[in-house]
Amino acid sequence: MTDPTTAGPAARPAAPQAAPEAIDSAPERRPAGTADAAADEGARARLAAALETLHGQLDPDELILPGDATAEPYDGDRRLRAAADARFAVARPRTVPGVQAVLRSAHAAGAVVVPRGAGSGLSGGAVPEDGSIVLSTERLRAIREIDPLDEVAVVEAGVITADLDASLAPHGFFYAPDPASVAFSSIGGNIATNAGGLHCAKYGVTRESVLALEVVLADGTLLRTGHRSLKGVTGLDLTQLIIGSEGTLAVVVAATVRIRPRPPARRTVLARFPAVTAAARAVNAISLSPVRPAATELIGPQALRDIDAASGSRLAREEDAILLIELDGYGIEEQTADLTAALAAEASDVQHPDPAEAEVLWELRRTGRGTVMAGQWRLGEDVAVPKSRLAEMFEQVDRVGREHGVAVSTLAHAGDGNLHPALVLDTPPGADGSVLPAALHEAADDLVRSALALGGTISGEHGIGLDKRAWLDLELGADTRSLQRRIKDAFDPRGILNPGKAL
Amino acid sequence: MTDPTTAGPAARPAAPQAAPEAIDSAPERRPAGTADAAADEGARARLAAALETLHGQLDPDELILPGDATAEPYDGDRRLRAAADARFAVARPRTVPGVQAVLRSAHAAGAVVVPRGAGSGLSGGAVPEDGSIVLSTERLRAIREIDPLDEVAVVEAGVITADLDASLAPHGFFYAPDPASVAFSSIGGNIATNAGGLHCAKYGVTRESVLALEVVLADGTLLRTGHRSLKGVTGLDLTQLIIGSEGTLAVVVAATVRIRPRPPARRTVLARFPAVTAAARAVNAISLSPVRPAATELIGPQALRDIDAASGSRLAREEDAILLIELDGYGIEEQTADLTAALAAEASDVQHPDPAEAEVLWELRRTGRGTVMAGQWRLGEDVAVPKSRLAEMFEQVDRVGREHGVAVSTLAHAGDGNLHPALVLDTPPGADGSVLPAALHEAADDLVRSALALGGTISGEHGIGLDKRAWLDLELGADTRSLQRRIKDAFDPRGILNPGKAL
Repeated sequence: MTDPTTAGPAARPAAPQAAPEAIDSAPERRPAGTADAAADEGARARLAAALETLHGQLDPDELILPGDATAEPYDGDRRLRAAADARFAVARPRTVPGVQAVLRSAHAAGAVVVPRGAGSGLSGGAVPEDGSIVLSTERLRAIREIDPLDEVAVVEAGVITADLDASLAPHGFFYAPDPASVAFSSIGGNIATNAGGLHCAKYGVTRESVLALEVVLADGTLLRTGHRSLKGVTGLDLTQLIIGSEGTLAVVVAATVRIRPRPPARRTVLARFPAVTAAARAVNAISLSPVRPAATELIGPQALRDIDAASGSRLAREEDAILLIELDGYGIEEQTADLTAALAAEASDVQHPDPAEAEVLWELRRTGRGTVMAGQWRLGEDVAVPKSRLAEMFEQVDRVGREHGVAVSTLAHAGDGNLHPALVLDTPPGADGSVLPAALHEAADDLVRSALALGGTISGEHGIGLDKRAWLDLELGADTRSLQRRIKDAFDPRGILNPGKAL
Repeated sequence: MTDPTTAGPAARPAAPQAAPEAIDSAPERRPAGTADAAADEGARARLAAALETLHGQLDPDELILPGDATAEPYDGDRRLRAAADARFAVARPRTVPGVQAVLRSAHAAGAVVVPRGAGSGLSGGAVPEDGSIVLSTERLRAIREIDPLDEVAVVEAGVITADLDASLAPHGFFYAPDPASVAFSSIGGNIATNAGGLHCAKYGVTRESVLALEVVLADGTLLRTGHRSLKGVTGLDLTQLIIGSEGTLAVVVAATVRIRPRPPARRTVLARFPAVTAAARAVNAISLSPVRPAATELIGPQALRDIDAASGSRLAREEDAILLIELDGYGIEEQTADLTAALAAEASDVQHPDPAEAEVLWELRRTGRGTVMAGQWRLGEDVAVPKSRLAEMFEQVDRVGREHGVAVSTLAHAGDGNLHPALVLDTPPGADGSVLPAALHEAADDLVRSALALGGTISGEHGIGLDKRAWLDLELGADTRSLQRRIKDAFDPRGILNPGKAL
């Protein structure tokens, strides 16, 4: 095996590149007629009033009127779609003043605004309700500034995350947050959901890379929060409060993000274990060592079989699980030695694939399971537990699969305790072909409650949106939820920003 | 020179240990009679009502009544003291229910509560107003849990930061945030001010090490926020909002903090430059290199002379400035080579002191300037600028000193753009010996405005408290301040938590 250490500045770590294919089932349609007719009439009237005020303030192609066929791609995200009878407008301003105009008009009329990034969400946060304006930031595409001396970039919300990263490469820098959607999700959406990814245990989630924001409030006011310096403590930290608020507090139009020097070297390590619980114990052994990998991905036995079936690889062997680990930075040999020592007690095999082999492995991790097959339902879940409970959580995942009669194919960002079990049912759709079978919802419910019981959370990185609101009370309790609503009111007293989502 | 790389797990990085001596002047007294008499009467009546409700709910030694001489040490922090005629009670509960009892009683009576950590603040955030209860968390001292597998510790607010760190050492872990006050400030106070320190450019400020909080709201409600896992996105991030809110939103009683493995090695590098602006340019050259030091401390020529005068060292040479740099982690030799290359263009000399010499240098950095001399006034400032503007900021520091006739002795956490110029005036105190001379206030004002003009902030890490409120409008503007007040109202509608501070 050749030495996989790259010479000179490394290319961007291999792992974060996105899956171009959807591995979960197509978005579920919300049932028609969920709101009562009178409420809908009121909402549609307010929308009409807002559109009348807005008339002439946007270019014609920046506004799609309700009922126009070109509005359809804006009817939801990768998890949920609006009810088929929902009427909504779409605003796609090219400028920040355009965003302000939309919000001013909507605010005056009391019309609901649903902020939207690139539509790549997985929890229904961008699903329009009847009588709303979808406010897309996709056309705010300027990378305003790249400043290696300050270690920051100033980017507009619609910039695709991977494009920002690519633009930093010639400067020898990279942008650390790397949700799996990095090739098609936008900085604004990443900030709205505090997106995670593969490299968070070492580099932090999106929150840790955002220094300052430019946001538009519900009434159209433009506000700048935060600092260009790493330090700064001036009043309440609105930047941090807005990150992860899923469009309920303000619309992010630009951000000053922290950029980092590309690591001088990196190396992939592939470790094989006789069972997923052994792999989980190995993750704990790494915690006790001094080494902190850039990524620690756990692939369970069913996920390995799925990858082999879809991609022709030969990774699965009985009930083996694997850890696909990326080291980066200085002292790669020393890091490798410490990592190998940490893995020794549990691993049946540890390999150091060369860079070409490593790239294949990361590609299999990302897209190897292929697309959803006809007649198959696949629901991607997202829970996180304290790292010490990983092995127990994997036992729960197995139990959930058995008890609900669904196959479970699990990948995990094991280094930060974040699991993505895909719940799979090989039955043809029922009468309503667009609605997930009840067994999958029940299995998801069991899974989420199991994570909570282990001290975990109902959402590691996908957000709450519409999809996870039912579980909020289990995690937060009434006092917290009421406080969060009061904060929401402080930002948006008329309640026009993404009501019914996240909180 | 011996090889300064330590073998095996390193002891805690040398730099963060605290200065046991105050290098700034004694706290300034607020002038008497600042509030009008009628307002004071009302406040004192509300305080009396709160104390009556509280009677019997705390042990006798947990409560100090107004006017008792033992209340005096609680009359302020290291920057400001209450007016001599201010009457206040002090509550020092040993338990979380005790904290809740204090807040319930105060809330019912509408009495003001001033939360207090260890009293080590530098902006007057813990100064009691007339008719208030100082609520000290100093006796909440339990380290409830250290869990290396989850990489967290659960600690109560009164735990001294250095004590937490020391308790982690046997486990091979450390707590990264390291304000200069680490030996006598507490975790709760660090969280309330989002404390910084020397290692922030690499390890982040306090914010980046706090995963979850246990807080008591203004009405006595106990609330748990956040997660034990590194990831978690459930509603608004109250943890992040409360961090840095200086006791205006809630009282922090415990925290789940992130702990990190001690780095396998570290090395100190001492670089000398012919001028402070050359040292600042070298900091920018490091930004363009792949190496990220754990600490990059800049000591200006006047600070070097002060250190030599107070400590008998021989660091100063004409207008030389030095960078005292700590590298840590893997690949120390590779890191040293990259750092040396980055320094080459500007440095007149680069040395690698052995560990014993390095410890002396860090000790000189921390405490070498000694205590304030009789007849001398010294005001420690705290501003931050984008790193690319460091050289310009140093020019401004020089100008401010010249124009206001004060000596300026500057240390800087240069890696994150945070400067601590000490403004020094060698004149005896005037009629009111406890009030800082106007020239120092004017110089500080000029300095803060200069930092803002360079895109910086009025406070890098000390907080706003009472001391920096006058400048808030310059940085934040009316829209932001009004939004921050509405958020404050959402937490504390009666306005009893640290009114008149921070916001």
